[in-house]
Amino acid sequence: MFVNSMSTRVRYAETDQMGVVYYGNYPQFFEIGRVEALRSIGLSYKEMEARGIMLPVLKLEVKYIAPATYDDLIEIRTEIRELPSTRITFHHEIRNDAGKLLTIGMVQLVFVSIESKRPVAAPDYFMELMQPYFEEKEPS
Amino acid sequence: MFVNSMSTRVRYAETDQMGVVYYGNYPQFFEIGRVEALRSIGLSYKEMEARGIMLPVLKLEVKYIAPATYDDLIEIRTEIRELPSTRITFHHEIRNDAGKLLTIGMVQLVFVSIESKRPVAAPDYFMELMQPYFEEKEPS
Amino acid sequence: MFVNSMSTRVRYAETDQMGVVYYGNYPQFFEIGRVEALRSIGLSYKEMEARGIMLPVLKLEVKYIAPATYDDLIEIRTEIRELPSTRITFHHEIRNDAGKLLTIGMVQLVFVSIESKRPVAAPDYFMELMQPYFEEKEPS
Amino acid sequence: MFVNSMSTRVRYAETDQMGVVYYGNYPQFFEIGRVEALRSIGLSYKEMEARGIMLPVLKLEVKYIAPATYDDLIEIRTEIRELPSTRITFHHEIRNDAGKLLTIGMVQLVFVSIESKRPVAAPDYFMELMQPYFEEKEPS
Repeated sequence: MFVNSMSTRVRYAETDQMGVVYYGNYPQFFEIGRVEALRSIGLSYKEMEARGIMLPVLKLEVKYIAPATYDDLIEIRTEIRELPSTRITFHHEIRNDAGKLLTIGMVQLVFVSIESKRPVAAPDYFMELMQPYFEEKEPS
Repeated sequence: MFVNSMSTRVRYAETDQMGVVYYGNYPQFFEIGRVEALRSIGLSYKEMEARGIMLPVLKLEVKYIAPATYDDLIEIRTEIRELPSTRITFHHEIRNDAGKLLTIGMVQLVFVSIESKRPVAAPDYFMELMQPYFEEKEPS
Repeated sequence: MFVNSMSTRVRYAETDQMGVVYYGNYPQFFEIGRVEALRSIGLSYKEMEARGIMLPVLKLEVKYIAPATYDDLIEIRTEIRELPSTRITFHHEIRNDAGKLLTIGMVQLVFVSIESKRPVAAPDYFMELMQPYFEEKEPS
Repeated sequence: MFVNSMSTRVRYAETDQMGVVYYGNYPQFFEIGRVEALRSIGLSYKEMEARGIMLPVLKLEVKYIAPATYDDLIEIRTEIRELPSTRITFHHEIRNDAGKLLTIGMVQLVFVSIESKRPVAAPDYFMELMQPYFEEKEPS
């Protein structure tokens, strides 16, 4: 399993008149979570696009447990629980500075060739960086 | 069952560099779909807040089938399939002008008293407007 | 001079915790104002991009007089006061349903070739549609 | 004069189909610039609101010189050039990682009492923190 955590501060723009973060802004938090998760092992999503692969989203699920509020320094935890193939699934948890769980999310994306617009297998340079996190432990 | 449809045009701001609508903008489309659905039977969400009830979101699910693109006049179809109680669930389908299904969404919200911040039953004026759509047909 | 007006309804997503529309959302309102203004004379900005010309923004000015609030049906008035050349300037006024002036805006854009990334003159098909609005009245 | 700099990374959500940051997203960058500028001297905008003062925007001006692109680590420089009174003006410059100037902005805000909704003088705790940056140098 692959795990990464990063923090970001809630912007005023992200609140709504309920006084909390608008429900539609969490997908952006998941986006920056997964981009930073990949960057942490040397993968740049930007470069991946430059090399011809994009990652459109297939599925999104969010559970809203408690609201994030303005100026909160939220922690976005990102997990990849299964070795990606043509698809990759990110699991997210967002917590506030007090450690309170606010949101649980799941985003499934698909590797697509920018040229052909068709699904493709995750590129080799991607899989090589991922594999160490999914290696079976040898029985002793 | 209650059904409503409305249309809105995709803004340039809503696209991303993939050349399609950013995945995180669909919750906004669902929001305007459900607000207009309620307005169509004389329910103003704005007034409901003014009268002390708000509707925070508990759960969101989105399936992305095909992308909406800039300037598309998209149709947002909104269904309420079960009589609301403390919670209300909206089911959405988004289609482009060609009738192609782009996105399927589900949003579950909870009636909350603005004063007490606690879940409450849907207010009577809400239920009265909803009930006709959920009446059992008498067996003949 | 060319003038157009269109209306749009303020989304919940566009409010912030001050209970009014976030100041950074008005550029989106200006965008939809200018796109609909052009559409009203048969010009599709989408097609213009498809034909190789894009219109990045050079300058933006906004005066905030009174706030728009959630669910307001705002009117976006768009004026082109001078015949475009390489640049085009839109002047905007936003009013609420009561006719109250909320915001004054100015957006200057430049015609750019998507291929060369360089400024170009406004395309002929654009100028032909614009010219009637800027013809000198003959002295009688 | 008061000066502060902070950095933030451009999100995918902030791009549009031109392949660059949407022009309407810069006000959000200015917002986080000014909030972090104030935080750097111990002023929390969040607390200021909690203590009864809000800062709605009166005026915004942006010059777009070159576009920010996806994943750029942009620097937001924030200056307060004059001692605030009822109003406060922030001047911003945004640069990319290569030091290239992308955007120049100016945002003028007004101190408003949340209770009375009327303009007020900047609160004392605000002025005390600001004053050292605007003290006249004694002639020697």
